[in-house]
Amino acid sequence: MKYPSIIQNLIECFKKLPGVGEKSAERMALSVLEFDKETIDLFAKSLKESKTKIRRCEKCNNLSEDDKCEICKDNGRNKEILCVVEEPKFVNLFEKLNIFDGYYHVLDGLISPIDGINPEDINISTLIDRVKKDKVKEIILALKPSVEGETTSLYISKILEGTGVKISKIAHGVPMGAEIDYVDSLTLEMALENRRYMD
Amino acid sequence: MKYPSIIQNLIECFKKLPGVGEKSAERMALSVLEFDKETIDLFAKSLKESKTKIRRCEKCNNLSEDDKCEICKDNGRNKEILCVVEEPKFVNLFEKLNIFDGYYHVLDGLISPIDGINPEDINISTLIDRVKKDKVKEIILALKPSVEGETTSLYISKILEGTGVKISKIAHGVPMGAEIDYVDSLTLEMALENRRYMD
Repeated sequence: MKYPSIIQNLIECFKKLPGVGEKSAERMALSVLEFDKETIDLFAKSLKESKTKIRRCEKCNNLSEDDKCEICKDNGRNKEILCVVEEPKFVNLFEKLNIFDGYYHVLDGLISPIDGINPEDINISTLIDRVKKDKVKEIILALKPSVEGETTSLYISKILEGTGVKISKIAHGVPMGAEIDYVDSLTLEMALENRRYMD
Repeated sequence: MKYPSIIQNLIECFKKLPGVGEKSAERMALSVLEFDKETIDLFAKSLKESKTKIRRCEKCNNLSEDDKCEICKDNGRNKEILCVVEEPKFVNLFEKLNIFDGYYHVLDGLISPIDGINPEDINISTLIDRVKKDKVKEIILALKPSVEGETTSLYISKILEGTGVKISKIAHGVPMGAEIDYVDSLTLEMALENRRYMD
């Protein structure tokens, strides 16, 4: 009974999305019935391609459709500076604000011994390789101001000790415990500008 | 720059859903990357089929995958009573609560002269046909308690005058101006129980 199975399935799929409950999922599924064919086709195609065509950039670990992401393919940026983020979405965040013209290095999360996530699990070794190979002069750590973020920042700064690379951390303005992507752009810009060098 | 085009497209599609802004759409698109293949396939398939396979029941105008919807196909319900709703989602709402065992008649919205929606636009004529042909004894109008809902209820009760059909309206408990699908189930059950006969 209730809805036809196609619509029930749609509701179940929408419910898997973050922040979507039964009621919203139902509303979304019914709204899909009003979509035009082009939107439906694009939606279905993008869903499938998100599985088959999206991979990680072999250089920076950002989301990409090719071996290298669009940013790493761009030779016009400042090669001497790397911004380290914990997830691809933060690359997008900085890019949208247009306040950084270096390259990125995307970790696979943050060090969290309590969750069994160790330094070797989060793509730090390739960062070390890049620093050595690409003559990076400065690394900006743009990680979440949490215990895990601080641990990861500290670990990276320790492991790069003696390489001569300047290491800074975005700081002023981002409140402890907050999510980086919910901070307003001015605050984030200030945080970048006022980064604090870690000895 | 920013995200690969596949992900940008996904974000744009999610933004077309009701109540989804830029930030939520981005979160949804990124969460899709974590979905397993089965979910993605079901999601894409359901989207496409919502366009190609979902139609309206030729009898009651409910959403259906066949000529007749599952409810109209069921011969075990009370044929003497019809519940008139303005949209398919209200059929689902009553069915979920399991408080009604008659059949439904789904209008295409409500009469609203100001928006150019007249009685002939909302599937009322087939209701009249059903009343005559199927020996319906009672009609319950479960329409939104708004000017449009009242107008539509009044129109239907007028046009069925003299046919001997009892016409009632769900009423007590549903606050004026509220959305029927946001009322708690007990209130809705009371509204059904305490329906008021229109002369």
